[in-house]
Amino acid sequence: MYKNEFEIITNYFAAPNLSFDHEGIDLGIGDDAALIRIPSATNLSISTDVLVEGVHFPINAGAAQIAKRALLVNLSDLAAMAAKPYCFTLGLILPNATENWLCEFSKGLGEIAQEFGISLIGGDLSEGPMAVAIQVHGITPVNKSLRRNGAKIGDQIFVTGSLGEGAIGLLCAGGKSHLGPSFKFMSRPSEKARDYFEKAYFQPTPRVDFALNCRDYISSAIDISDGLIGDLQHLIKASGTGAVIDIEKIPVSNCVDGFLSSENLLRAALFGGDDYELCVSVAPEKCEDFVEVAGRSDTRVTLIGEIIAGDDVEFMSSVEGGIDADGKAYTHFSPERR
Amino acid sequence: MYKNEFEIITNYFAAPNLSFDHEGIDLGIGDDAALIRIPSATNLSISTDVLVEGVHFPINAGAAQIAKRALLVNLSDLAAMAAKPYCFTLGLILPNATENWLCEFSKGLGEIAQEFGISLIGGDLSEGPMAVAIQVHGITPVNKSLRRNGAKIGDQIFVTGSLGEGAIGLLCAGGKSHLGPSFKFMSRPSEKARDYFEKAYFQPTPRVDFALNCRDYISSAIDISDGLIGDLQHLIKASGTGAVIDIEKIPVSNCVDGFLSSENLLRAALFGGDDYELCVSVAPEKCEDFVEVAGRSDTRVTLIGEIIAGDDVEFMSSVEGGIDADGKAYTHFSPERR
Repeated sequence: MYKNEFEIITNYFAAPNLSFDHEGIDLGIGDDAALIRIPSATNLSISTDVLVEGVHFPINAGAAQIAKRALLVNLSDLAAMAAKPYCFTLGLILPNATENWLCEFSKGLGEIAQEFGISLIGGDLSEGPMAVAIQVHGITPVNKSLRRNGAKIGDQIFVTGSLGEGAIGLLCAGGKSHLGPSFKFMSRPSEKARDYFEKAYFQPTPRVDFALNCRDYISSAIDISDGLIGDLQHLIKASGTGAVIDIEKIPVSNCVDGFLSSENLLRAALFGGDDYELCVSVAPEKCEDFVEVAGRSDTRVTLIGEIIAGDDVEFMSSVEGGIDADGKAYTHFSPERR
Repeated sequence: MYKNEFEIITNYFAAPNLSFDHEGIDLGIGDDAALIRIPSATNLSISTDVLVEGVHFPINAGAAQIAKRALLVNLSDLAAMAAKPYCFTLGLILPNATENWLCEFSKGLGEIAQEFGISLIGGDLSEGPMAVAIQVHGITPVNKSLRRNGAKIGDQIFVTGSLGEGAIGLLCAGGKSHLGPSFKFMSRPSEKARDYFEKAYFQPTPRVDFALNCRDYISSAIDISDGLIGDLQHLIKASGTGAVIDIEKIPVSNCVDGFLSSENLLRAALFGGDDYELCVSVAPEKCEDFVEVAGRSDTRVTLIGEIIAGDDVEFMSSVEGGIDADGKAYTHFSPERR
């Protein structure tokens, strides 16, 4: 039941739930390029994330799951910039193209596109080993974008939501965690727990509304894709500062019912990645307003530390022993992983 | 000699020859997204092409060749829209990352980026089976973009350059042509001929200057990636017209020195694809000026036919026999190819 690429595009991608009208989109799918306009005094944020089967999602993951995750992790980059989702393109590489797979993929992608009001304007389709390359475009008034480089000494460090659920979800879904063989279950999670964590992995919540509402209070931001500590290191490097984190304050998942050790729960939160929560810095005098506005955006924020002088992340903890040495942030191509 | 992804990005992609300053680019590589501005009354053209090893370039093609081809074929989409190259992103999937490969890739990509003044503003790097997903952005004053849907009955059909050299180059490079086993050499091409055609395949010439200079004379345009006839069919479908092509006027390559039959030379030109020349329609009263301005852009244009009423491409030829039936345009996932 193969179709050629033009039929596939017409049937599954140039569909009203995906490629919908949006002010400023003059031309969508169907020509050599799409044409958009952006309002004056506006920045267009552009970000791309490539997801490869077996690396960014387990082999044999469902088509809708892959589609949702691919778009959501890209939307998280827009959230980190405080950009309003605008339009996206899709590069899709598939070993084959069954009706059923395409239908599920298109449906899953459409759900997220509708939820965030982001329209598919173009793409490319090819045969090959499965990978999804999505590029998102968002808009922000000039000088209102959040960046990594704005943290100042004394700023308070907050994170949204709970951390570590993405890494736990990957384990539930049968994926291979970069945390190594010691990151494993002590007992089998319940069906309900598995569903919860798999959803956290496949359908993270990009903090778009939070970022749009709170951007005036935030001095710097990054999304947590590689793990809190690794991503915080990027932020402080860009800002030319250090950071201190209070280990006891890290918002680990409270949905783990004894099937993971407390040590692994913390490792997942600090180093696991795949959470797509935001880590932000806030000037001390803005913290009160920030917390209030975040609450109105239905987003829990937790104060976990402070920007300090230096160039590394330091840990505060009353617990003896400290952090397991092999819990590092995820990087591709690092020699240690080979 | 593996490096981690952040070192790779810093060393090979956030390099001055690739990620260079450009008016309107407020933030390039290094944050969660890039930030650009575009002038008022301007359309941003956005296009993406995914290149997969073994599908869009032969396995074991050189890194610089892959890089150049990947960017050039994307630039060709901007040419087809008459958009001035502005910035691009790169999604790169690699099975491994040797210093040498990355160095060559970056250098090749940088050469083309410099030549066309298009700056790399972001991307993503992953392990996996080799593929390159590039997305280009170009700018055009509002209402000056070229589209596929503007052809009118009576318009003259022109193509730039010579057709078929991409398909011949793919054969020279050891790639598999979609034209089938009968598309083969009668004798071994000379070293010089092989170099010429391989360059035509790996380094097509996006007709950017031509399109920018001639856009006021052109009623519709498409770039020839899948083969003249297939792409012309897209153009007439979008325009709601038919077309008639004079087979004798097709500008086949004149660099074939007896190593390909005249029949295969014509098949390559009509159905081969990978040429990245432009096929355009021009209103009769504008043809004279069009040809003159094209000449000033150092671009040979050839009149090959006319837009007519109908919904298909018809052929005119004084040669008996007509067109080989298996010479069709390239499509992914088409059942005929399996």
